Amino acid sequence: MKILVINAGSSSLKYQLFDMTDHSVLAKGQCERITVDGAFKHVAGDKEIKMEVDLPNHKKAIELVLKYLTDAEYGVIENISDISAVGHRVVNGGEIFPESCIMNEEKIQTLDSLTEFAPLHNPPAVTGIRACIEVMGESIPQVCVFDTSFHQTMPKVASVYALPYEFYEKHGIRRFGAHGTSHKYVAAKCAEMMGKDPSELKIVTCHLGNGSSITAVDGGKCVDTSMGFTPLAGLLMGTRCGDIDPAILPFIMKKFNISVDEISDFLNKKCGVLGLSGVSSDFRDLEAAAAEGNDRAQLALDMFNYQVKKYIGSYAAAMGGLDAVVFTAGVGENNPILREEICTDLAYMGFDFDSEANKVRGKAAKITKDGSRVAAFVIPTNEELAIALDTQMLVEGK
Amino acid sequence: MKILVINAGSSSLKYQLFDMTDHSVLAKGQCERITVDGAFKHVAGDKEIKMEVDLPNHKKAIELVLKYLTDAEYGVIENISDISAVGHRVVNGGEIFPESCIMNEEKIQTLDSLTEFAPLHNPPAVTGIRACIEVMGESIPQVCVFDTSFHQTMPKVASVYALPYEFYEKHGIRRFGAHGTSHKYVAAKCAEMMGKDPSELKIVTCHLGNGSSITAVDGGKCVDTSMGFTPLAGLLMGTRCGDIDPAILPFIMKKFNISVDEISDFLNKKCGVLGLSGVSSDFRDLEAAAAEGNDRAQLALDMFNYQVKKYIGSYAAAMGGLDAVVFTAGVGENNPILREEICTDLAYMGFDFDSEANKVRGKAAKITKDGSRVAAFVIPTNEELAIALDTQMLVEGK
Repeated sequence: MKILVINAGSSSLKYQLFDMTDHSVLAKGQCERITVDGAFKHVAGDKEIKMEVDLPNHKKAIELVLKYLTDAEYGVIENISDISAVGHRVVNGGEIFPESCIMNEEKIQTLDSLTEFAPLHNPPAVTGIRACIEVMGESIPQVCVFDTSFHQTMPKVASVYALPYEFYEKHGIRRFGAHGTSHKYVAAKCAEMMGKDPSELKIVTCHLGNGSSITAVDGGKCVDTSMGFTPLAGLLMGTRCGDIDPAILPFIMKKFNISVDEISDFLNKKCGVLGLSGVSSDFRDLEAAAAEGNDRAQLALDMFNYQVKKYIGSYAAAMGGLDAVVFTAGVGENNPILREEICTDLAYMGFDFDSEANKVRGKAAKITKDGSRVAAFVIPTNEELAIALDTQMLVEGK
Repeated sequence: MKILVINAGSSSLKYQLFDMTDHSVLAKGQCERITVDGAFKHVAGDKEIKMEVDLPNHKKAIELVLKYLTDAEYGVIENISDISAVGHRVVNGGEIFPESCIMNEEKIQTLDSLTEFAPLHNPPAVTGIRACIEVMGESIPQVCVFDTSFHQTMPKVASVYALPYEFYEKHGIRRFGAHGTSHKYVAAKCAEMMGKDPSELKIVTCHLGNGSSITAVDGGKCVDTSMGFTPLAGLLMGTRCGDIDPAILPFIMKKFNISVDEISDFLNKKCGVLGLSGVSSDFRDLEAAAAEGNDRAQLALDMFNYQVKKYIGSYAAAMGGLDAVVFTAGVGENNPILREEICTDLAYMGFDFDSEANKVRGKAAKITKDGSRVAAFVIPTNEELAIALDTQMLVEGK
């Protein structure tokens, strides 16, 4: 079975074609600057092609992807019909989509109505699904996998805000979380690496990248997560402020004349480690700057470590214990210094850290010693494969 | 030495006169509805007087207080000059006042300039100090004790927000915290009850009342606290939402047409356990409603417990360990159920809870068993005495 995974943004579309027999990636690539001008990159094995190309809409982008997947030279399949199903990443499924599902016209319309909750992300997903149906026909199942699904098991103490209750009940304002596909994937891998059943374990999964979130996984289920109603909340990130005193918003809106339409954009794009350091949103740049004595870059790095530690302690308290912590995503997989600082500072929780084992980037590894009361792991995330697996499960179970 | 402690609000003025030889309260009372019409209550020993009285400004209120403190029947001192000093509670001292201090005209003006940070609370404090000088003369020292002082030792990782750095550096937008006088007082008492030097201890102090905050006290110094730039942040409270995804603000401002001038008031007064439950901001009312099967009242109580637990875990992580937790203020001192739920849920941290010892309200008690790896205490707070003690120390050290 071959499954195409699509992650559509407002002006981009990333794709990977999986062979589900061995989970290998047959081809992958991306369309960029859709609706602006257009750029395309396609990689299949050791063949790669890049081009500037007119991409006025997502339909043209899908057509281009399918053309190259079936191309005589760059292709990896004979016909479009060799694709058994398409899995789409969707940022927010609200409470209406607690699980991945095969889409039909009614569900697409429902998803479209959730735009309010993910104004930047959900519309391109809908556009991507419609484009796939138009180009590939109705016979190939289109599956949606939601970033929010894994978090739907949170109890109300974690998911509801201390706002008037009707804000939740009538208007759906609640914690949705994000990166659910990644947290679910690495939590399952963690249980596998520990040789235990997920139902026995209390795990904190740290998805640390340009966007970062931390999740408490108790018995295989999400019980709390750091991102909130939107992906602005929780940890400070590359350019996002994370949790701040809400009273700061009206204060700075008045003081700096920022409008209600501009404030989200400001807090999402001009803050975080970028705003703090004045250097970059990229942790590698921050480390370079800190090494050269830049105090603000060092503060940004220290604050990030500090907040990660606090979330680990907080979620252990939420679960009443802790068996393992997982580090994943760009920063989590590739930053041994951060992992070592966090785990050694938290030695009191029962981490017996293994500095040698920690000398790893982008590879799965246990980074605590055997017998450590709380274990720590590096586990590379693979959201695309997780989407493909969910898609396969749904299509086979159909 | 006799010290008068004053807590001036925009339309109220509370006072206590302490005899510092034994820390006893000679007299106390309050003026209310100042600038509206006026009401006065004064208690001295077993004598009490209440009256409706015209109070057009804070000066008249101070005059009334001093009149009754020196009154033939209701008084406890002969002359105003028997008062050695006055201690004023001030909500926010910014970074300019890291410690309690004796005020002079220059300092009063500086304090007045901090109004931006505590628009509701600082102006009445300034008014109260000026009224005292006018009525009592310049010879009696006026001391300010700031709710923010104890939190000034926080490192930058805890006090700075992930906003553009100039917001902190040029505009003073940072975490200030609140209830500092209370946290400092109960942390010191806790060390005393443990028979240890504060420098040896990692303590989490939980000031839980209608306004609630939690502080991490490492080696006698505050290293983190839950309230932020304003007292809106942190835990959900009686009517305050606490930390929420900042992106919720522009969302609800647009959806419900709430202006930038109204949003702080809304989040401060219509949310918290009141907004969630629809019942009350008072925890006793919530317990009664929950006992009668009100799910939303139960949710509000559960959410409060849950967030307190998470802060304890989080601050243990921030300090790299935990020796003791203190419960204080209205809810903390008088709610054995909440204390038991929290400490037993956190048994994994090392609490060996003592249910018998916990059957206490408003009295100091150790509520964990001897030998418990982490100890828990109920310690009644006494912000007025703490203000009097700081005032005495400054006046004697003058």
